[in-house]
Amino acid sequence: VSITGLDPSLELALDLVGVFVFALSGAAVGRSKNFDVVGIAVLAMVTGLGGGLLRDVLLDEHPPAAFREHAYLWTPLLAVVAVLAARGLLERLGRPVLLFDAAGLGLFCVVGTAKALEAGLAVAPAVLLGSITAVGGGVLRDVLAREVPSIFRADSALYAIPATLGAIVTAAAWRLDQFRPETALAIAGGVLLLRILALRYNWRAFTPQPPPDARG
Amino acid sequence: VSITGLDPSLELALDLVGVFVFALSGAAVGRSKNFDVVGIAVLAMVTGLGGGLLRDVLLDEHPPAAFREHAYLWTPLLAVVAVLAARGLLERLGRPVLLFDAAGLGLFCVVGTAKALEAGLAVAPAVLLGSITAVGGGVLRDVLAREVPSIFRADSALYAIPATLGAIVTAAAWRLDQFRPETALAIAGGVLLLRILALRYNWRAFTPQPPPDARG
Amino acid sequence: VSITGLDPSLELALDLVGVFVFALSGAAVGRSKNFDVVGIAVLAMVTGLGGGLLRDVLLDEHPPAAFREHAYLWTPLLAVVAVLAARGLLERLGRPVLLFDAAGLGLFCVVGTAKALEAGLAVAPAVLLGSITAVGGGVLRDVLAREVPSIFRADSALYAIPATLGAIVTAAAWRLDQFRPETALAIAGGVLLLRILALRYNWRAFTPQPPPDARG
Repeated sequence: VSITGLDPSLELALDLVGVFVFALSGAAVGRSKNFDVVGIAVLAMVTGLGGGLLRDVLLDEHPPAAFREHAYLWTPLLAVVAVLAARGLLERLGRPVLLFDAAGLGLFCVVGTAKALEAGLAVAPAVLLGSITAVGGGVLRDVLAREVPSIFRADSALYAIPATLGAIVTAAAWRLDQFRPETALAIAGGVLLLRILALRYNWRAFTPQPPPDARG
Repeated sequence: VSITGLDPSLELALDLVGVFVFALSGAAVGRSKNFDVVGIAVLAMVTGLGGGLLRDVLLDEHPPAAFREHAYLWTPLLAVVAVLAARGLLERLGRPVLLFDAAGLGLFCVVGTAKALEAGLAVAPAVLLGSITAVGGGVLRDVLAREVPSIFRADSALYAIPATLGAIVTAAAWRLDQFRPETALAIAGGVLLLRILALRYNWRAFTPQPPPDARG
Repeated sequence: VSITGLDPSLELALDLVGVFVFALSGAAVGRSKNFDVVGIAVLAMVTGLGGGLLRDVLLDEHPPAAFREHAYLWTPLLAVVAVLAARGLLERLGRPVLLFDAAGLGLFCVVGTAKALEAGLAVAPAVLLGSITAVGGGVLRDVLAREVPSIFRADSALYAIPATLGAIVTAAAWRLDQFRPETALAIAGGVLLLRILALRYNWRAFTPQPPPDARG
C-alpha cells in the first residue's frame, strides 16, 4: 500500500485550526455560564485538546501531539484571549458556540481518520476513531459544563452524522489514493456545511417512540 | 507460571456477548430518554465499548480490541437494531436495562480480570482492572445520559460488589489453574444471579449516617 | 542533561499521601451524599487514583503505578475506613473535603510535573500534565457525584491557579537543578497554603461579564 497521507505540516495546521475553533466554543460556553477566566481557560483547553488526546491515547501515539508541540498549548489560550476580547463581536455572530463547534467537527473528523489510517487501522475502525476525535472534545466540554452533550440534544440531531460521513469520505479518498490537501479541506468544509444546514433547517434524525416504562 | 487463560476465540465470544448486552442497555436508556436514533446508537457504542477500551488502554493493548476486530463495531449496531425492532418485547421484559446491564457486568468482570492476568498483572490490580472493565461502560452511559451512575444509586447498592466478587473468584481460579471455559461461564452467571437477586430482594450495602454538614 | 528527580521512594511516598488525601475527599463527598459504603469506596478510589491514572496513561507508563504497587490499592481503602470511623472528628474539622482536596492538589502537581519531566517532556507540556494530574481526580469525583467540578465553582476560583503555579515552580526548580526533597515539600505546602488562603479570604479570579445571549 502506498501511504497517501497529507503533508505533515498541513496535517498539523488543520489539527491546530480544529483545536482553535473547538477552544473558542469551549471558552464561549464558559463565558455564557459565568465562569471566571480560569474556568473559561480550562474549558477551552479541554474542548480544544480533548478529542486529540483521546485519539492519540487510543492510537498509542506517545507523547500525544498536545505534549509534543508547544503550539497545542498556546492555541487554546489564544482562543480564550479572542473570546474575552471580542465581546460585542461574539454576540453579533449569533450562535458562535455552534458555529465553532461545527468547524472543529469537520477538521477533527478528517485529521482523526487520516491519523488512524496512517497508524495502520482498517477502514471501519479508522472511521470510528475519526468520529470519536471529532465529537470527543465537545462531549467533554458539555459533561464538564453540565450541559446535555450536543450529540444527544434533541434540537441538534445531525451532529454525529456529519462527522461520521466525513470520516467515511476521508477513508474512501485515502483508499482510492485521492486524499490530497484540497480533498481534506473539501471534506472538512462539507461536514461544516452539512452541520450548519442541519441547524438552519432543523433537520432531525428519526426518533423512535419511547416505551411507556422502559427504565427499571 | 503456566498460562491458564481461555481459548482466545472463547474469550472473544464472551467479550462480544458482553458488548452486545451492554449496548442493549445503552440503547434502551437512550430510547427511554427520547434520544433520536443517532443518540441511541452513540449511547449503545459508548456503553458496549467503553469498559473494554478503558481496559485495553490501561493494559497498553494496542490497538484496543474494539479497533482490531470488526465484530466490535457491528455488535453494538446490532443491539441498536434489536432495541428499535423489539418495541413491544422490551416492555414485556420489565426492566430490560437492569437485566442487560447485569449480564454485561458478569461477562466483563471475568474477561477483564483474565486479560489483566494474561498481561502479567498481580492478583489485586487484576481484580481492580476487571472491576473497572465491568462497571466502566455503565458509568460512561449514565454520565452521558445525565443519570446518577448505577454504582452510586441508593436503590441498587449491590452493583460493584458482584463485579468485584466475580473478579476475585476469576483471579483465584486462575491462580489455582482452574480457569476453564465452564468456570468462566459459571462465574459470569453467578455475578448475574447475585445482581438480579440483589435487585429483586432489594439487598443493600450499609449506608453510614451522613454528617450534619460535611460539605464545605 | 542531568536527571535531578527525587529519590524514587520519596516520590512514591508523596504520591501515596496525595492518593490518601484525595481519597479522603472522595469518601467525604460520598458520605455527605448518603452513598452506601460501596459508593463511598468507589468514589474514594476514583478520586485518589484518577489523576495518577490519567498521568500514567498520557505518559505511556505501563502498567500505571496504581496497577504496579499494591499500596495504591490499600491506601484509598484506608481512607474509606478513616472517614467511616472518624464521624465526629470530620465534623469538627469544618470543611474536610476542601482541606484534603487542597493537600492532594499540592502533592499531585509536584509529583505529576516531576514524572513528566523525568519522562522527557518539555517544560510547558510538563506543567500542563502536572496540572492535569492535580485536578484530574477531583474533576472525576465531582462529575461522578454530579456536582459542579471544583475547578468551575464560582466560590472557589483559585483552584487551577495554585496547581499550575506549583507545576511551574516545580519545573523551574528542576531546570535549575534545585529540585530536592525539601523543595518538593515546600512547593506542595505552598500550593496547599495558597489554596487555603484563597478559600478563607474568598479570593477570586476575574469573571468577564457574560454576553446577553451567547449560547446558540
